[in-house]
Amino acid sequence: MSWQPDRLLHLSLAAQIKDWMIRQIQSGEWPAGTKLPPQRKLALSLGVNRSTLQEAVDELKADGLLSSRTGSATFVANDSWHLLVKQRLPNWQQYIEASIHKSNDQTIQLINEFEQDASVIRLGTGELSPSLLPVNEIQASLGSLPLDGKTLGYSSPQGSETLRQAICDYVKKRGITTTPENICVVSGGLQALQLIALGLLQPGSLVLQHEYSYLNSVRPFQSFGMNLHGLSADQYTAEHIRKVRGRRQAILYTIPTLHNPTGECMTWEDKNALYQLCAAERLPVIEDDVYFELSFEPAAPAMKSLDRSGQVIYIGSVSKTLSPGLRIGWVIASAPVIQRISDIKMQMDYGSSALSQLVVEHWLRTGLYENHVRRLRAELQSRAELMEILLKQYFESKASWESPQGGFYIWLRFHEPVITKELFMRLLKKKVLIHPGYIYGAQDAHHLRLSFAYGSEKELRKGMEMLYREI
Amino acid sequence: MSWQPDRLLHLSLAAQIKDWMIRQIQSGEWPAGTKLPPQRKLALSLGVNRSTLQEAVDELKADGLLSSRTGSATFVANDSWHLLVKQRLPNWQQYIEASIHKSNDQTIQLINEFEQDASVIRLGTGELSPSLLPVNEIQASLGSLPLDGKTLGYSSPQGSETLRQAICDYVKKRGITTTPENICVVSGGLQALQLIALGLLQPGSLVLQHEYSYLNSVRPFQSFGMNLHGLSADQYTAEHIRKVRGRRQAILYTIPTLHNPTGECMTWEDKNALYQLCAAERLPVIEDDVYFELSFEPAAPAMKSLDRSGQVIYIGSVSKTLSPGLRIGWVIASAPVIQRISDIKMQMDYGSSALSQLVVEHWLRTGLYENHVRRLRAELQSRAELMEILLKQYFESKASWESPQGGFYIWLRFHEPVITKELFMRLLKKKVLIHPGYIYGAQDAHHLRLSFAYGSEKELRKGMEMLYREI
Repeated sequence: MSWQPDRLLHLSLAAQIKDWMIRQIQSGEWPAGTKLPPQRKLALSLGVNRSTLQEAVDELKADGLLSSRTGSATFVANDSWHLLVKQRLPNWQQYIEASIHKSNDQTIQLINEFEQDASVIRLGTGELSPSLLPVNEIQASLGSLPLDGKTLGYSSPQGSETLRQAICDYVKKRGITTTPENICVVSGGLQALQLIALGLLQPGSLVLQHEYSYLNSVRPFQSFGMNLHGLSADQYTAEHIRKVRGRRQAILYTIPTLHNPTGECMTWEDKNALYQLCAAERLPVIEDDVYFELSFEPAAPAMKSLDRSGQVIYIGSVSKTLSPGLRIGWVIASAPVIQRISDIKMQMDYGSSALSQLVVEHWLRTGLYENHVRRLRAELQSRAELMEILLKQYFESKASWESPQGGFYIWLRFHEPVITKELFMRLLKKKVLIHPGYIYGAQDAHHLRLSFAYGSEKELRKGMEMLYREI
Repeated sequence: MSWQPDRLLHLSLAAQIKDWMIRQIQSGEWPAGTKLPPQRKLALSLGVNRSTLQEAVDELKADGLLSSRTGSATFVANDSWHLLVKQRLPNWQQYIEASIHKSNDQTIQLINEFEQDASVIRLGTGELSPSLLPVNEIQASLGSLPLDGKTLGYSSPQGSETLRQAICDYVKKRGITTTPENICVVSGGLQALQLIALGLLQPGSLVLQHEYSYLNSVRPFQSFGMNLHGLSADQYTAEHIRKVRGRRQAILYTIPTLHNPTGECMTWEDKNALYQLCAAERLPVIEDDVYFELSFEPAAPAMKSLDRSGQVIYIGSVSKTLSPGLRIGWVIASAPVIQRISDIKMQMDYGSSALSQLVVEHWLRTGLYENHVRRLRAELQSRAELMEILLKQYFESKASWESPQGGFYIWLRFHEPVITKELFMRLLKKKVLIHPGYIYGAQDAHHLRLSFAYGSEKELRKGMEMLYREI
């Protein structure tokens, strides 16, 4: 008997042994009535301890495929073949457990699930309230889209050329001068990260980032073996970065304007200093700039505007401003990076929705977008004020926070470590959904990402009161 | 000197050489003042012609990193290190080469690129002609979409519930009875394959398939370490499959109706036999059914209709019928598979375009889709007849083929091995784009995937004449 379970597989040893035994029965190697070798001997030849083997045998007994008659001897059951034919169920759970991609964190899965329930009050959701989306204007603009057979066909690898031209014009307001050749249209910022992970990084690569980061709540890098490493404010030094990085390939991920989840904004001087540091260290940068339009005061230009050497991969999107449902974002980077990302995007989904691309182009070109985000900022600002009033009412003595400079979030810090999974579950049962700090930074029990962008005034008031009562 | 540029990379040879020279200087292999080998010798060892080398050298001279002093000798400039530090160019090529995802095959990249050029005649494209897309009807239907703030927000993990309900009703015509819980909406069939690769398979898993297969022309499985294995018609036996499979995790990929590229259709008896074989072998099946609506005679029910144990993962799409630009497809499978795929889809792109989902739901619900595909089949049938006339005119003595039963393709088999990369390139220079057999089956030089779906009558006539002349 040469087969042994593979300790490098995701699947447990017992599960592998169980699978192997089923194959032995199916293939006729062990016909019905076969007496199995003594367990001690079998465990030895499989290279596992007896309790592992016992686990597999017990499961197959429960399935009716093996049976014990006298004493400890184990037999292949007489009706085993019949059972197997009857079952014929592929064991998808085994496939899933052994597969490549990581599952979402359980808290995130619960958040995704309960966000579908309209009766839930969402206190942390990173999404505009349906009432803030320009539904009627989008509906009206659908009539003006220049549809034709070419547009409705497969997209070019980098996305619609006319949309890319419109993006070039649009990002001038961020201080960025670029060409359509340096842009790839993607299905939102998250896809951009996935494309960077698959197209530029390798297992073991290091992704440096803020100590509290949106990246910790998604899996585009972790699923492919890249390691995230959080830097506290005083660790953005050449010395520290060199020490952490060692000889590993590395990249820095940053949301310089309205950081998710903390809401922080880097000043122009901060951006400059960080850019210079990364340039000196030859550390490429991913600049995630999807929130800048929501800054209450005009935001400092993008870090990308400093870039003369193709150091910075810039990500933009309309998901936080116009509509997440359109699924349109863009990457701006040096030509080899864009070619690579576009090639992989073609291999993943053959490009983004042509309709969505047309809508975004129309909104950017006609000024509809500019007008909409102006109104949106005002709405968000009054929502932020409401949230601060509620915070002062309920949590002034228990927690601290900064007044938001824009965006969706207030990063609330409790003096005591009260933001636990248990609190999350308790509130969920009462139909209040929170975004605990621990999904953005491991072990955290002090923070909460509050969002003033989603709930109605009534929901925010009720939700904050319930939060207060449960804490 | 062992390094040579890689002709399969997208980056030009000169750019690769330039990058390599910078690495030589950076790493200290070529310190300041180094005299480069004579160009003739260097070009030879790099395996490129002198003009390519000259291009790289000229660019580095322009950058100030190389200089010529006397005659033809070239030196590393004395201030090269200083310049490099000042430039601080990240070496993206190194990132790309070491990264996870495979590049598209060079022929495929060229096809993607030249499909953007409207002056090119496309003889093999897997896409409907823009003139066959119902542009005006789609435009008209945009006015009737029930847009609201909820729909334009982030999607639920499995996609729009109402679209999934419409798909349930629609696939009854394929003999499939299912529920919205067993459906995940995806951005086209290719994304479905990527999600299956990442969510269910592992490096080393075996994907069994037709010996000539669309899968060989894309990379969703190969990029993550899965192995494709082609089966010829007589190898679909339990014995052969067991031998090939060994102990590896395996899955079977099949396009039973209008196979891409061969156009073959399995009869109901064939499907039944294959299903029974896979069930007995506990071999899960991916049934790719994106072409069935294009069958000239009603197609036999889907293999999925036989499935009582969740053995079959079924893929559908509107890309081959309504519009590839919408990017909407669907996966129908057992609950754990759908949950897994949906979870990963959320992590990859947060769902498909809401607008596109609304359009597809509207078209399925109102019968617009049914009417459109009926007209489309008639159009494709008359195009297929034209293509057969041209084939008889030019290739009757040189090649054989089956009359198409639907879809887009004729799988032309030449008696002589004439379908080479060289022929592909020669035709490309004359602005005729073909899909050579070797992108569907390694080493093949006998086949051509002809498509009668894309070119106009004039283009097809001209293209076929040019093909004839070049062969």
